[in-house]
Amino acid sequence: MNKLTIVKVGGKICEEPDSLAQLLRDFAAIEGNKLLVHGGGRSATRLAERLGIATKMVDGRRITDDAMLEVVTMVYGGLVNKNIVAGLQACGINALGITGADMNIILSDKRPVKTIDYGWVGDVKQVNAEALKALISQGVVPVIAPLTHNGKGNILNTNADTMAGETAKALASLFDVTLVFCFEKEGVLRDENDDSSVIPVIDRNMYAELKQQGIVAGGMLPKLDNSFATLSAGVQSVIITKASNLSDLSKGTHLV
Amino acid sequence: MNKLTIVKVGGKICEEPDSLAQLLRDFAAIEGNKLLVHGGGRSATRLAERLGIATKMVDGRRITDDAMLEVVTMVYGGLVNKNIVAGLQACGINALGITGADMNIILSDKRPVKTIDYGWVGDVKQVNAEALKALISQGVVPVIAPLTHNGKGNILNTNADTMAGETAKALASLFDVTLVFCFEKEGVLRDENDDSSVIPVIDRNMYAELKQQGIVAGGMLPKLDNSFATLSAGVQSVIITKASNLSDLSKGTHLV
Repeated sequence: MNKLTIVKVGGKICEEPDSLAQLLRDFAAIEGNKLLVHGGGRSATRLAERLGIATKMVDGRRITDDAMLEVVTMVYGGLVNKNIVAGLQACGINALGITGADMNIILSDKRPVKTIDYGWVGDVKQVNAEALKALISQGVVPVIAPLTHNGKGNILNTNADTMAGETAKALASLFDVTLVFCFEKEGVLRDENDDSSVIPVIDRNMYAELKQQGIVAGGMLPKLDNSFATLSAGVQSVIITKASNLSDLSKGTHLV
Repeated sequence: MNKLTIVKVGGKICEEPDSLAQLLRDFAAIEGNKLLVHGGGRSATRLAERLGIATKMVDGRRITDDAMLEVVTMVYGGLVNKNIVAGLQACGINALGITGADMNIILSDKRPVKTIDYGWVGDVKQVNAEALKALISQGVVPVIAPLTHNGKGNILNTNADTMAGETAKALASLFDVTLVFCFEKEGVLRDENDDSSVIPVIDRNMYAELKQQGIVAGGMLPKLDNSFATLSAGVQSVIITKASNLSDLSKGTHLV
């Protein structure tokens, strides 16, 4: 099977011209088939602020009412996505910026209201792997904004980590998929205050121990749970690293 | 050759939920291959206003400084484009929302500064007809926002009428292209105050007469000049009509 590298980057790195330029160069240098999923939360919060719209977060998730849906559609689907696409094109990469609505790539269900009404937030239901494969096989590099649709005409705000994970799972039967989560640290750290304490490889047994010892905790737990779930679904390898390491994927933490 | 209908709609019709819903139904009902080019100027002006950014127009063209480029990238590439795409998907149309940067579909040159500095405004240089054909041949319906790129990493604000015309010309050697410009009136009117005075067919000779008589004047002149230029470049037929006539393209003014 052909290889495919799926990279997820947060919004922060896409926001500053310098860090964006570096990201684009590093991502462009990845050999073979590739796909990028990006965030954009900080930019959305900033635009909302300028428009006098309050940002409400619950457990790290954005409450997305009508006004906030407009904001994220503009920021994720427009500003952040198109700047990345134009930047990649300038690097000679044939980028195509999409949301889950485009070509019906990712369908989701509006999150049911239980104790909290998240508004226009979608949980991924189905990834159209064949459509993505057709694009990738033509040399196209999909750049996916964290928006999906419900098939009824509504755009839904969707977590970028989840979209990357679900996309990786769906493509695992068609490609040898490496999934790379870029975040602020060099990798999973044994000591969160020591950037040189990266744990190079974590398997399931070790993950259980690290959890028990409290070394992996907080926001890293859903990230790693999500990652091990993609491995179970056939993804070849998951790497957690800093975006500046994209040019050398032997660094960071490799989940196996 | 296969037929292709290219429809250009202004931003106004995409802004109100009711008129957008009607447009989507009418556009979806067009048989065979199709492609939509949309505007969004009014929404851009409204967002700019909310952000305290002044809109400056010269000869109907928007001066696009850094702040305005962000606005149009968000509104055209994000809000308007993705709402149309999600709406068409709900009608069973496999829409793909793109700008000229995506898949390098439309490359443009930043307009040179002469007496007026238009800022980040692009004049179409090249349309990637083969890439569009590949998409259309897969059953994809491209939905094009009025943004292009310069190949150097910059998004450029570009006139939607021009983009529709240039796209039609570029595709004329690959498809039997019908180009439909939707605007507020039923067609080209003999008497601008009488909606029933639509001129059903205009050829070049008649156009010259209509200009001489002052019946066609003002903003209609560039629209018709542009239209006749596409006919010279191989486009089969150009229709100027109201969006609500999309379900019956025998109406409106046909240029031949």
